[in-house]
Amino acid sequence: MTELEAETGGSRVRELDRIAAFTDGVIAIAITLLVLAIDVPNVKLEPGDSLDDKLLDLGPDLFAYALSFAVIGRYWLLHHRFFATLERFDSMLITLNLLFLGWIVLIPFTSDLLGEFPGHAASVIAYAVVLTAVGVVNWMTVRHAIRHGLTGPSPVEPFHGDLVGLSFPAIFALSIPVALLSPRAASLTWLLVFFVHPIMRRRRRED
Amino acid sequence: MTELEAETGGSRVRELDRIAAFTDGVIAIAITLLVLAIDVPNVKLEPGDSLDDKLLDLGPDLFAYALSFAVIGRYWLLHHRFFATLERFDSMLITLNLLFLGWIVLIPFTSDLLGEFPGHAASVIAYAVVLTAVGVVNWMTVRHAIRHGLTGPSPVEPFHGDLVGLSFPAIFALSIPVALLSPRAASLTWLLVFFVHPIMRRRRRED
Amino acid sequence: MTELEAETGGSRVRELDRIAAFTDGVIAIAITLLVLAIDVPNVKLEPGDSLDDKLLDLGPDLFAYALSFAVIGRYWLLHHRFFATLERFDSMLITLNLLFLGWIVLIPFTSDLLGEFPGHAASVIAYAVVLTAVGVVNWMTVRHAIRHGLTGPSPVEPFHGDLVGLSFPAIFALSIPVALLSPRAASLTWLLVFFVHPIMRRRRRED
Amino acid sequence: MTELEAETGGSRVRELDRIAAFTDGVIAIAITLLVLAIDVPNVKLEPGDSLDDKLLDLGPDLFAYALSFAVIGRYWLLHHRFFATLERFDSMLITLNLLFLGWIVLIPFTSDLLGEFPGHAASVIAYAVVLTAVGVVNWMTVRHAIRHGLTGPSPVEPFHGDLVGLSFPAIFALSIPVALLSPRAASLTWLLVFFVHPIMRRRRRED
Repeated sequence: MTELEAETGGSRVRELDRIAAFTDGVIAIAITLLVLAIDVPNVKLEPGDSLDDKLLDLGPDLFAYALSFAVIGRYWLLHHRFFATLERFDSMLITLNLLFLGWIVLIPFTSDLLGEFPGHAASVIAYAVVLTAVGVVNWMTVRHAIRHGLTGPSPVEPFHGDLVGLSFPAIFALSIPVALLSPRAASLTWLLVFFVHPIMRRRRRED
Repeated sequence: MTELEAETGGSRVRELDRIAAFTDGVIAIAITLLVLAIDVPNVKLEPGDSLDDKLLDLGPDLFAYALSFAVIGRYWLLHHRFFATLERFDSMLITLNLLFLGWIVLIPFTSDLLGEFPGHAASVIAYAVVLTAVGVVNWMTVRHAIRHGLTGPSPVEPFHGDLVGLSFPAIFALSIPVALLSPRAASLTWLLVFFVHPIMRRRRRED
Repeated sequence: MTELEAETGGSRVRELDRIAAFTDGVIAIAITLLVLAIDVPNVKLEPGDSLDDKLLDLGPDLFAYALSFAVIGRYWLLHHRFFATLERFDSMLITLNLLFLGWIVLIPFTSDLLGEFPGHAASVIAYAVVLTAVGVVNWMTVRHAIRHGLTGPSPVEPFHGDLVGLSFPAIFALSIPVALLSPRAASLTWLLVFFVHPIMRRRRRED
Repeated sequence: MTELEAETGGSRVRELDRIAAFTDGVIAIAITLLVLAIDVPNVKLEPGDSLDDKLLDLGPDLFAYALSFAVIGRYWLLHHRFFATLERFDSMLITLNLLFLGWIVLIPFTSDLLGEFPGHAASVIAYAVVLTAVGVVNWMTVRHAIRHGLTGPSPVEPFHGDLVGLSFPAIFALSIPVALLSPRAASLTWLLVFFVHPIMRRRRRED
């Protein structure tokens, strides 16, 4: 199919737009479904009873929500900048993109799991595995596009197609062994993702 | 990144469209998920038994639905008019926009909470906090865009980038102390939002 | 705002497209959420036990699903043809459109209710009320657009802006008193909607 | 309506785009709702208790998720390539497309059922029936478009409008009698879908 794609120009742009729109759709739904993981307390209360304690129990749910929202939002940003540099696509790119979405869609589940069982190694590891996979597949997609010349001669940054781009999934991968010792410590290491991005951006600017 | 954005013209419009589409997607999903907060009565009934009482219990659910639908719908309108005036964007605008969405997505949760525990200060306050945050972040986004010249020399109204624009979140913020005294009174003050908008529009027309 | 809209041409088309896209998004989500109303049987089975009986109980769920899917799908079609004839919009049209969506989004709830309590007057009436409202608001939207000259001099059919256009909600409205006598008979009258559309189309062709 | 469609050119493309976007929206939501079928274990655990066993029980859920994601993703790809070849549409195409979506939206339900009751003939058959219907309706849509000249003189492959195109639903149809003997064997035959596609593509290249 690849030669065919190289030939036809105009309709390809429309198809690329449709792939981007589908991806955006899936990401938008996944990021919004995160809210379903925040559980409304399942209790019967008389008007006089206090709901405060029940809402304080939502701490882990809200932590999981904020982290997952930030992570999915960040991948949407990366994806959207990456697609802006694409000029063509091939079957492999679409397959990798679907695989990427397949892992993204799992985040609401692992986020729910994490909010429900915050102190357990199994839920922390499940979350870390999914986020590692999301990061690695995203990196493979970018790498594939660069290697096969699918991106145009754009002045835009190379969006983590290099080793630096693996720093994000590396944080989640490295948290897996940590979770075996201390699940809570492992989830705290994830907060590093909020610092990695600005550092990487600064580095690239200096190049 | 900002200089780069100023340079490239055409592809920026396409990117702005994609950001707008993503935002629309998240808002559309959030507004539709509101329906999941209206609980189908979880009872076993024989064909002869009456379902009427159970449906009458849905009053608070429907109040929360109607209010939340109107509020999200109103922010979608504002956002969509605001984006129509945008000519450029920077990283801060995207970050603020994601933050805005992060609060919007919480509305189905607080709406569910409100329908479930209508007479409790905690659920009323949770709802008011989220709506205050939505309004403030929206206001900050508009203000940022105007201050950094991201909007074009458009004849369109300035969409609440000024103090008047804070009147909407102010209603929700002021209802928080009220909720400590009377949760029901606090939720009634929210109905003011239906009057603020027409007043503001009339004022602007007179300018 | 109306004069302003009349002046600016190009960006208005883009805004109309965005309103159409948002509407499509909400309808697409509502139509897909219908599936959540089909309940996976909540039973513990040994591999030898039969699941068949439990699945046969899903009859009312599947009836509600098929009917609601057809009805929402039909309104999407109408809406999409109607919007193709629009050349301009005003605040009232957007408000009516949001109101229309507000009723559409309730369909997954009433559909769930109907599947859960198929033989009860209350659930049948709730379903009929929502579908009547959807039809009436849709009719009001079309009527408003035609009366205020928002549609172009298009050769396309007037999409039920006349009395004929009320036949669809009329079926649901008339089923409400029927439901008080026999809920099941009332739900059967709804099947008339599958015959009304082809008849109306034929009539219009003959004109 | 068909003659009318043949006459008007430009707005038809916009309408085709809107139908494609709506279809994409429904498919994107259906594929993302699959995650809701993966159940977070509903247990109360002390921080010391192990969650591992509960997560291992998710095997069938994850099998159903991966299979359904791959199948929906594959139909999205087919649909999107098919629509790229369309130049016109008629009422029948839209009706068939809605019917196709009606079956697609059922997949999250049957996927949930399959993950919940993996060894039962009834759930395996329900899954197979839905997937057979999806495939057959998709095939009918393509066949209708080709027969009525709705596709352009495009160099793109005919997307399974011929008998070969039925091989995919045939796999699911043939698994139905197998499920009566062994539900698990039937679900294993579904893995053939991962081999059919590459084979078909190779065959077509050789032609």
